[in-house]
Amino acid sequence: MTEQKATNVHWHDGEISREDRGRLLHQQGATLWFTGLSGSGKSTVAVALEEALYERGHLSYRLDGDNIRLGINKNLGFSAEDRTENIRRIGEIAKLFADASTIALTSFISPYRADRDQVRALHADANMPFIEVFVDCSLEEAEKRDPKGLYKKARAGEIKNFTGIDDPYEAPTAPEIHLHTDMMTLAEEVESVINYLEAQGFLAPAIAGA
Amino acid sequence: MTEQKATNVHWHDGEISREDRGRLLHQQGATLWFTGLSGSGKSTVAVALEEALYERGHLSYRLDGDNIRLGINKNLGFSAEDRTENIRRIGEIAKLFADASTIALTSFISPYRADRDQVRALHADANMPFIEVFVDCSLEEAEKRDPKGLYKKARAGEIKNFTGIDDPYEAPTAPEIHLHTDMMTLAEEVESVINYLEAQGFLAPAIAGA
Repeated sequence: MTEQKATNVHWHDGEISREDRGRLLHQQGATLWFTGLSGSGKSTVAVALEEALYERGHLSYRLDGDNIRLGINKNLGFSAEDRTENIRRIGEIAKLFADASTIALTSFISPYRADRDQVRALHADANMPFIEVFVDCSLEEAEKRDPKGLYKKARAGEIKNFTGIDDPYEAPTAPEIHLHTDMMTLAEEVESVINYLEAQGFLAPAIAGA
Repeated sequence: MTEQKATNVHWHDGEISREDRGRLLHQQGATLWFTGLSGSGKSTVAVALEEALYERGHLSYRLDGDNIRLGINKNLGFSAEDRTENIRRIGEIAKLFADASTIALTSFISPYRADRDQVRALHADANMPFIEVFVDCSLEEAEKRDPKGLYKKARAGEIKNFTGIDDPYEAPTAPEIHLHTDMMTLAEEVESVINYLEAQGFLAPAIAGA
């Protein structure tokens, strides 16, 4: 309608793709799905991993109870149906972050195999990397740590359907990464994940340094 | 338990913050909320803006019907309640992207002021930038364009509750950016948004280039 003014906007051919974003960030997006008992160390290793990635110049983003349960999932309760919907939504959001070429780190107990497999399937359907990280710790050790005093309350019957006490934890049968947090140091756990990401080509060597 | 092995992991003090991620990406995260009639040009300008940002070395990510309606919101229909929940979830997801220091571009008609204001409020509560972009186009022009043939169907009564025909579009009263797509070229629209982002300091000059 009006003539085109001189502008400093440069034009790119076609829509920006996942690969374009990956080139911009020198990394490939992926979902790292941390699963394990309460107190197993999921958030601890996710926080440490986020820092290690940052020090290497990589962008990651953590999805956890703080920003999910108080945000998009605040209208969900703890019925079986709502728990499944909780995990489904987290999976869909992680997938969007992976598509945005960000390394999404999710830390939720996610005790049911069917729920995790549903998230794996929706990533596979979109050709998006899904990396299940089993944060393995014996119930005895997790209960000994009991950082939030939840096991004590569950044993006292003050909390019902608590994973590991009166609700099952279905361990991953073939996780991409298996961490034994009652036998490894935090540094070893982080190194193990970083090594996996580098070996699989998610982190561009030029940025990853050494 | 085991001694700490030598590792190439560098440690950062404390959790990675929004500001840390912003430094990494040379930008500040924000939600750019495009609202307007069907056919007004929301997606067209969002796609062009994504390209312009990419050419400047900036990361943005588009949320639209393709990745939202077929993903996280596939369990929502078109009742009044579901439409509000649709916009709420999109707002929560955009907020997560803004927190991840990404420039989130949402393009949805989002016809109701109350829904948009709810998203604005949840960003304000988290001290997260929310930029409402009114993609303004006369109904006459939008209906003339009718890129998907939806106005024709709505006029024929084949689609009910179509915004602009038998459902209202509540125009923003104080949008941060006001584009008149029936009077501006696409390049002018993009330049207008880029100028706003630069003036507000969302894009670091060192990366933004000339």
